[in-house]
Amino acid sequence: MKEQPGITSGETVLLIDKRGRKWLVIVQKGRKFSLDVGEIDLEDLIGKTPGSSITTHLGKKLWILRPTLEDLIMKYRRPTQIIYPKDLGYLLVKSGIGRGSIVVEAGTGSGVLTTVLAWMVHPEGHVYSYEVREEFIEIAKKNLERSNLLEYVTIKQADVTQGIEEKNVDAVFLDFGEPWKAIDTAYDALKGGGVIAVITPTYKQAEKVVEAMGDRFIDIETVEIFLRKILVRKGKTRPNTRMIGYTALLTTGRKVLL
Amino acid sequence: MKEQPGITSGETVLLIDKRGRKWLVIVQKGRKFSLDVGEIDLEDLIGKTPGSSITTHLGKKLWILRPTLEDLIMKYRRPTQIIYPKDLGYLLVKSGIGRGSIVVEAGTGSGVLTTVLAWMVHPEGHVYSYEVREEFIEIAKKNLERSNLLEYVTIKQADVTQGIEEKNVDAVFLDFGEPWKAIDTAYDALKGGGVIAVITPTYKQAEKVVEAMGDRFIDIETVEIFLRKILVRKGKTRPNTRMIGYTALLTTGRKVLL
Amino acid sequence: MKEQPGITSGETVLLIDKRGRKWLVIVQKGRKFSLDVGEIDLEDLIGKTPGSSITTHLGKKLWILRPTLEDLIMKYRRPTQIIYPKDLGYLLVKSGIGRGSIVVEAGTGSGVLTTVLAWMVHPEGHVYSYEVREEFIEIAKKNLERSNLLEYVTIKQADVTQGIEEKNVDAVFLDFGEPWKAIDTAYDALKGGGVIAVITPTYKQAEKVVEAMGDRFIDIETVEIFLRKILVRKGKTRPNTRMIGYTALLTTGRKVLL
Amino acid sequence: MKEQPGITSGETVLLIDKRGRKWLVIVQKGRKFSLDVGEIDLEDLIGKTPGSSITTHLGKKLWILRPTLEDLIMKYRRPTQIIYPKDLGYLLVKSGIGRGSIVVEAGTGSGVLTTVLAWMVHPEGHVYSYEVREEFIEIAKKNLERSNLLEYVTIKQADVTQGIEEKNVDAVFLDFGEPWKAIDTAYDALKGGGVIAVITPTYKQAEKVVEAMGDRFIDIETVEIFLRKILVRKGKTRPNTRMIGYTALLTTGRKVLL
Repeated sequence: MKEQPGITSGETVLLIDKRGRKWLVIVQKGRKFSLDVGEIDLEDLIGKTPGSSITTHLGKKLWILRPTLEDLIMKYRRPTQIIYPKDLGYLLVKSGIGRGSIVVEAGTGSGVLTTVLAWMVHPEGHVYSYEVREEFIEIAKKNLERSNLLEYVTIKQADVTQGIEEKNVDAVFLDFGEPWKAIDTAYDALKGGGVIAVITPTYKQAEKVVEAMGDRFIDIETVEIFLRKILVRKGKTRPNTRMIGYTALLTTGRKVLL
Repeated sequence: MKEQPGITSGETVLLIDKRGRKWLVIVQKGRKFSLDVGEIDLEDLIGKTPGSSITTHLGKKLWILRPTLEDLIMKYRRPTQIIYPKDLGYLLVKSGIGRGSIVVEAGTGSGVLTTVLAWMVHPEGHVYSYEVREEFIEIAKKNLERSNLLEYVTIKQADVTQGIEEKNVDAVFLDFGEPWKAIDTAYDALKGGGVIAVITPTYKQAEKVVEAMGDRFIDIETVEIFLRKILVRKGKTRPNTRMIGYTALLTTGRKVLL
Repeated sequence: MKEQPGITSGETVLLIDKRGRKWLVIVQKGRKFSLDVGEIDLEDLIGKTPGSSITTHLGKKLWILRPTLEDLIMKYRRPTQIIYPKDLGYLLVKSGIGRGSIVVEAGTGSGVLTTVLAWMVHPEGHVYSYEVREEFIEIAKKNLERSNLLEYVTIKQADVTQGIEEKNVDAVFLDFGEPWKAIDTAYDALKGGGVIAVITPTYKQAEKVVEAMGDRFIDIETVEIFLRKILVRKGKTRPNTRMIGYTALLTTGRKVLL
Repeated sequence: MKEQPGITSGETVLLIDKRGRKWLVIVQKGRKFSLDVGEIDLEDLIGKTPGSSITTHLGKKLWILRPTLEDLIMKYRRPTQIIYPKDLGYLLVKSGIGRGSIVVEAGTGSGVLTTVLAWMVHPEGHVYSYEVREEFIEIAKKNLERSNLLEYVTIKQADVTQGIEEKNVDAVFLDFGEPWKAIDTAYDALKGGGVIAVITPTYKQAEKVVEAMGDRFIDIETVEIFLRKILVRKGKTRPNTRMIGYTALLTTGRKVLL
């Protein structure tokens, strides 16, 4: 295993301080990056080994990392609802998709889920993402470009409830206001045994989704996932006081032929 | 997108009944599969489209599916502790690994985590899995073969706390009794910014891990993840009474250069 | 503080073994009590100090305790849904009732909640408990007698949705299938500022309750409470694997005058 | 059941607005109460029926309620850690205390737990509360006076780990930094079968407590309790996003005679 190359000009870099605060910056000559603990010349990042550090002009140390996919999506411009890593990871495992999979998604939103799906299926696979709102398409495209995954995604300005052109797809992910209206078109698009995954904020929405799925899907499950941070300190370990108590309900099922 | 091929001889198939019970079978001519709701000739599965069904001689319908990775690992011979999809998915997203990643893991156990890691990084990437107990190595190899991922994994009968031969690896996953003893060797094996992910059942173990990590890792986080099933029925939706209240603590961090 | 008296004939006693299994027995001369770890003469309990032990004829030690209210209600004949201590305790604190309070409850069921309410308000206060099903009234009366609280309770075989005779009551507790139908009568029965507390299994039921409460109640809150047991062992502490994931939704509010 | 009397001069009243914000005020002639939504003359509250409302000079409606015990304690001057209603209620039910019980508590802190214990056991029972820090004793006394429960409490400026003068008490509650040091004295003070209840923030503390309890206590249990608020709105019900993820571990057990 060869040593990893140093940071290059134009690369997106994650800076992180002792307290765990994070910033994404694009390395460019002649540009400075200012934050509350001082300033750095972005040029000084060039050639640095990931994992090394840089010091601001006020003497604060910042660690230099190559961002993971999670780092990128957590810093996306997000005008829509966030999907959390705990939910994303679960849906990936449940959906069974991997490299080469063909996936349909709606709506695109700011492209968070789109990015993770593209990352999973590329380069042989593809993501077809439906979105009716033009302004989100632009945002999602920029976000996907930033993650170098745009070429594996086709964003369509179309209403997924009116029809899905793709057929025999491996999985359909629905994350928009009235997903029950897309169960028919999702069923037609899926291959036999293909997985549907639906994200809904309310219980009533999940009910409508499960009702619309009927007996055309099997192995139907709705779950919610909690994540609690633990403050780990020698002899004083205890859970964090504050936590996100709720994000969404996740419903999955598999298409069967009637 | 072309139609998916029918089931072939030698293929592993998932059978599922109305109540969601699942069986993995290998399609073979001249063999029968018996269960409490009757018997089927495995030969009759050949040529079937995934998503279609077959009826036992007692008239019970079984749906025929191609197993997802989750289906496979949940049916592994598992003499060791289970890692649940909720935890696996989270660790995948946190670790940032993907196709082409080089990953070290210890211990191999029955190969559940190994399988998921191999699935993520193949075909360009590789998993180096350390295990001292010979009997587990045999079990894991059989399980990996079943999932067609063995070629992307090198299982080493060696003690990970004594040294890791691989260097500049993208991530190290530790899931064995005394993971704090492998923090030094994991640090040496990781590339700058590489991710360490440690699974521990007890608070004390997490404390020892975090203490051993010291300031050589940044962005250190320990979390636990809960999953609750929701019984979704029109107008009667409520959470399930029974739930798994605890599986493990998940500690992650990234290597920094001192 | 004087020493507590020894166990007397006719008293209800809690026996508990090392593993935490519990039995309620009534001390009687000439009767034996048999369990899987052997037999004891109930007469031998007479005069024993609570906290002391007795040994079965097979040599197993059983500890002798005076039952708490929780011990009593957890051993009630319970043909209806259980209310758990975590939920009971919360509702007691939220309701603000105490000795002297006048409380209305429906339905009586097996008398679990009735018992706890009577325990809180006696001897000056009183519980009026409505129940339409005759068979439950008999069960509840027996259970209340066993806890020596029957004299503080009036059980009425009547439909609470048709009217509540008591007025200016301090709190109303509703725990039956269609509690939203009793919001009107509960409102009429409550004093200004009085507390309503409603227990419902499903989200839809809670919605109907909150809708029926309208703006006639203030400080309306719906919560669910989880309890997780922790396995505490030196250096090996971790949460229990199994847990009750759900019991009920608890909705509370206070009457305001329009 | 007679009508409740109107508000009188000198009474403590709870004001609550539409958004659920709460204020405790003492009714006094010639005093005004100012808040961000306007001002009221406290004198105007005299004679009002609880549940009725008053309007600020800026036209905002405030509802007038008699405070429950929970209202009082949630507004206590609290320089120490809060005990939440979910935890309080559970401990009350587990401890089995009621009117007439004799209870020992340490430390007094700001008197939140003291208040609830006094409320439970008065008027025949009594609470003996140990506290070494003089400044807290003063705060607790003022808080208890405000709740009219001071006469049922004896606060002792003494170290509970050095000895408890009371004997044959029904229950001992420990809520201070090193509760394991008071297990011996608590054991001596308790009657046979008496309940000990210990509140600890960390896992390690709970371990030390359980270790100190040894086999002198039976039915030992450590639990944590979560409370999640549900946003109940017709057809849109879902849990609250934010929640308190952790408060404390609650350990209970019963004294047995060796």
